[in-house]
Parts: sequence; structure tokens; C-alpha cells
Amino acid sequence: MTAGQPCRVLLTLEYEGTAYAGWQRQLNGPSVQEELERALSRVTGSAVSATGASRTDAGVHALGQRAHFDTDSPIPDDRWPFVLNALLPNDVRVTASLRVPDTLHARFSARGKTYEYRIFSRRAPSALRRDFTAFVPQPLDTAPMSAALADLLGTHDFAAFQAAGGTARTTKRTITEASLDRQGDEIVLRISGDAFLYNMVRIIAGTLIYVGQGRLDRDAFARAIRTGDRLLLGPTAPARGLTLMHVRYEDLP
Amino acid sequence: MTAGQPCRVLLTLEYEGTAYAGWQRQLNGPSVQEELERALSRVTGSAVSATGASRTDAGVHALGQRAHFDTDSPIPDDRWPFVLNALLPNDVRVTASLRVPDTLHARFSARGKTYEYRIFSRRAPSALRRDFTAFVPQPLDTAPMSAALADLLGTHDFAAFQAAGGTARTTKRTITEASLDRQGDEIVLRISGDAFLYNMVRIIAGTLIYVGQGRLDRDAFARAIRTGDRLLLGPTAPARGLTLMHVRYEDLP
Repeated sequence: MTAGQPCRVLLTLEYEGTAYAGWQRQLNGPSVQEELERALSRVTGSAVSATGASRTDAGVHALGQRAHFDTDSPIPDDRWPFVLNALLPNDVRVTASLRVPDTLHARFSARGKTYEYRIFSRRAPSALRRDFTAFVPQPLDTAPMSAALADLLGTHDFAAFQAAGGTARTTKRTITEASLDRQGDEIVLRISGDAFLYNMVRIIAGTLIYVGQGRLDRDAFARAIRTGDRLLLGPTAPARGLTLMHVRYEDLP
Repeated sequence: MTAGQPCRVLLTLEYEGTAYAGWQRQLNGPSVQEELERALSRVTGSAVSATGASRTDAGVHALGQRAHFDTDSPIPDDRWPFVLNALLPNDVRVTASLRVPDTLHARFSARGKTYEYRIFSRRAPSALRRDFTAFVPQPLDTAPMSAALADLLGTHDFAAFQAAGGTARTTKRTITEASLDRQGDEIVLRISGDAFLYNMVRIIAGTLIYVGQGRLDRDAFARAIRTGDRLLLGPTAPARGLTLMHVRYEDLP
């Protein structure tokens, strides 16, 4: 690759969302996009804009966010992590880079996403895991939580599962994986689907916590899907428990 | 228990060491001991000093540090976590409290300690685990690392395994457990013993990294034990990878 031949690069990013107002560039605080674009512009010597796969909220983390940008830089396709990590703050890391066709769009070409939501369940809150989990001081019964999750699988109208302010044209989504795993004091929800509505995973997590506490029945998800009634679900769980794990594209790793 | 009857309380503490100059109260920065003593003094209305089991260094974490203090407060023995956590910064948490005999001393009565040291081995550094692991960009061969660990088990003179400034009267120590576990991109050393010399676990971790990189042979520990020569070992690995997991006392949980 030589300078002058524009090409599109897809990055994989890991970041801790604690210090950021979210992925997207905005006025009310620092954003991950802004940090990335600043580093890209310094490396290439010209203004570069980066498009993320998911507009993660303030406090939400990522292990597998993706973002694309166009450049005519002579930097080899696989060297972007090394070059960018030297300029990025240490709570944002580029873990992989890949040349992709100009037709691939980080957001619109995404075919699926995987999220994890972590619940820390112990009498005393955690010092080490405070920014990566939602704290629940009561013990949670995971059997009804797992049972409830089964009703999410498949293609449904998830109209009840979005925060006010969601702007999706359709609220039909397909969930391909929804599982619960206990890791010490942490209960980990892992969920994959073709796409998610605004705050959908955090509403699912908040509902699961209520089911585990016995405040909602294990058919809470099924009833909300059937009726479209947001009030049948639990509260939106805190951002800090959520991590974007992976974004899937056709024919890409 | 009523006010006026002095008793000794043993606390279990979890803390993230990143923001602290270490456990011990000192002039050059905030310490965990200082935060704990400030909270204890506010709760009880009088100056309280707390004695820790281990003087963890700056940046070292704890899931199971222990500390004792004497008080005539009417607060029930098991309510200290609740009361103190309301006053402590959120990177320090009290996770348990227990009334103990006046003869129990957090440091001198300790019969054993368990530490974990976490190595993050991947080409790109981690954003989420940056403060909890030592970063090693090369792949590590864990087979010789595990083999080397076996030579630590038992009672040996560990004179080679301490930083300058160690003040122990004897350098004989007994190691009862030393194991390696791979958890995704993290390699976790778990080590238990009756006691540890100054920086001993970090010197063991630094040596293990060298063994995994092929820069030291798998008999590095055995040779250093035999000769007492610090130069046969690797460098002291960074504090951020180390966590004090547990302090053991006779007849206590």
C-alpha cells in the first residue's frame, strides 16, 4: 500500500467507559470516538473521522467495539494497533486492525452483536469490581433468571424493551443466545442478537435482577413481548455492568 | 456488648491499590490504613488505630487483607462493614468483621497468606485490566513456568528472593501452594505460604515471566534457593499485578 491509494480500515477496540460520556463525540464530556479520531489525525497528519459499530453509553465498556475509517496513509494494515496505542489514553486500546472493502460500514454492515452484563451479588459491595458490575446486596436465585431468559430467544417484537428516546424504525429483533453463568460473586448474562434497541440489554439485566429477587415472575419477558408493555419489566440496570463483547460481520473474523 | 467494655475486632478488607501509596500510613501519599482509621474515628468519635496483616505496597490490591482495632463502641460485631462502607471511599471496602480475643494480632498472629499475581499476555495491552495485571506482549510458554514453580514448594532459605531493604530476621519460609492457571489472556500465579519476604511474590512473578519467555531456565528457582543469589532470578514484576487474597489465622475463618 502506498500513500495516495485510499482504503478503509476496520479497528477492534477495547475500552473502559468509566471516564467517558460514551462512544460518540459530544459536547458534555470526553468520548472514545474523539480520543480515537485525535490519535488517527495525529498519525496521518489530516482530519480523520471514525464510525463506530455501536454508540455505547456513558460508563459502558467494550472488549470488541469496531470502528472504520478511510485513509491513504502508508501505515501497513495490521500496524494500526501499535501506532495508535502509543497515542491513546490507557483506558482505550486498539486490539486489531484489518483492511476491508469500501462498502463495509462498521454500523450498517454489522450482522450481530454480543454483550455481557455483570451483576455483583454479595452483602458488601466490591472495591475491585465496582466499575465493571452492578451491585446487588441480596442473594439472587439464578434458576428462575435462567428460565426467564429462554423466552427471549428467537424473533420477537421487543417494543417493550426500549428506553424512551429509541428511534428504531422497527422493534423486531432476533436473539440468538441468552445465557447466565455464575463466576464467584458475579452473575454474568451473555446475550447475542442481530441488533439491540436503545438500552435493551440494560432493561433485560434490570428485569433479570428483579426475577432473581422474586419481585417479578419468570414469565416477565414473555408477557412484555406479548403485550409491548414496558411496565411489566424491571428498571434499566446501571451502565457500568455492561460490556460490548463482539460485533459480527459477514465473512470477517 | 455495651459501651465501656473494650474489645478487639478483626476486619477483612478489599481494596484497589491503584490510588494509594500502599497499606501503611505515610507522608508521601494517601494510604488505605489512613482511610480506614479516619472512618473508624468518625464512627466511634475517638482516635482509633488499625493494624494490618500485610503492608501491601503502592498499587498492590487486596481481596482479603485483615486489620484489627480495639474499641468500646456499642456497634455490634458484625455491623462494621455496613457502618464503615458508608464512610470509606469506593475503592476500599470492608467485607467482614469478627470479634476476636485481645491476644490476636492481625500481623503477628497470621499463620499464612495467599497471593495471586496476574500476567496479561497478548500483543495489545488491555484497557479493562490495565490496573490489575502486568502486561507482557510476547506469548508465554506456561509449561516451563509450571515446572519451575514446583521447586518453590516446601521449606527453603529464600534469601535470594527479597528486595534490598528487607528486614526479616530469618529468610527461611515455607511455601504450601504454587500453581499457574490460564484464564483467557491472563496467566494467574497463586501462591500460599507461612509468610513472604519483602517483594518475594513480585520477584517470583518476574522470574516466571522470564522463564515463560525462555530468558531463564526452569531451574531458576532451584538454583537461587541453593546459592542465595538474587541475580539468578528475574526482575521484580510490577505491583499492579499483585493481589493479597487471604490471611489465615488459627481457628478463624
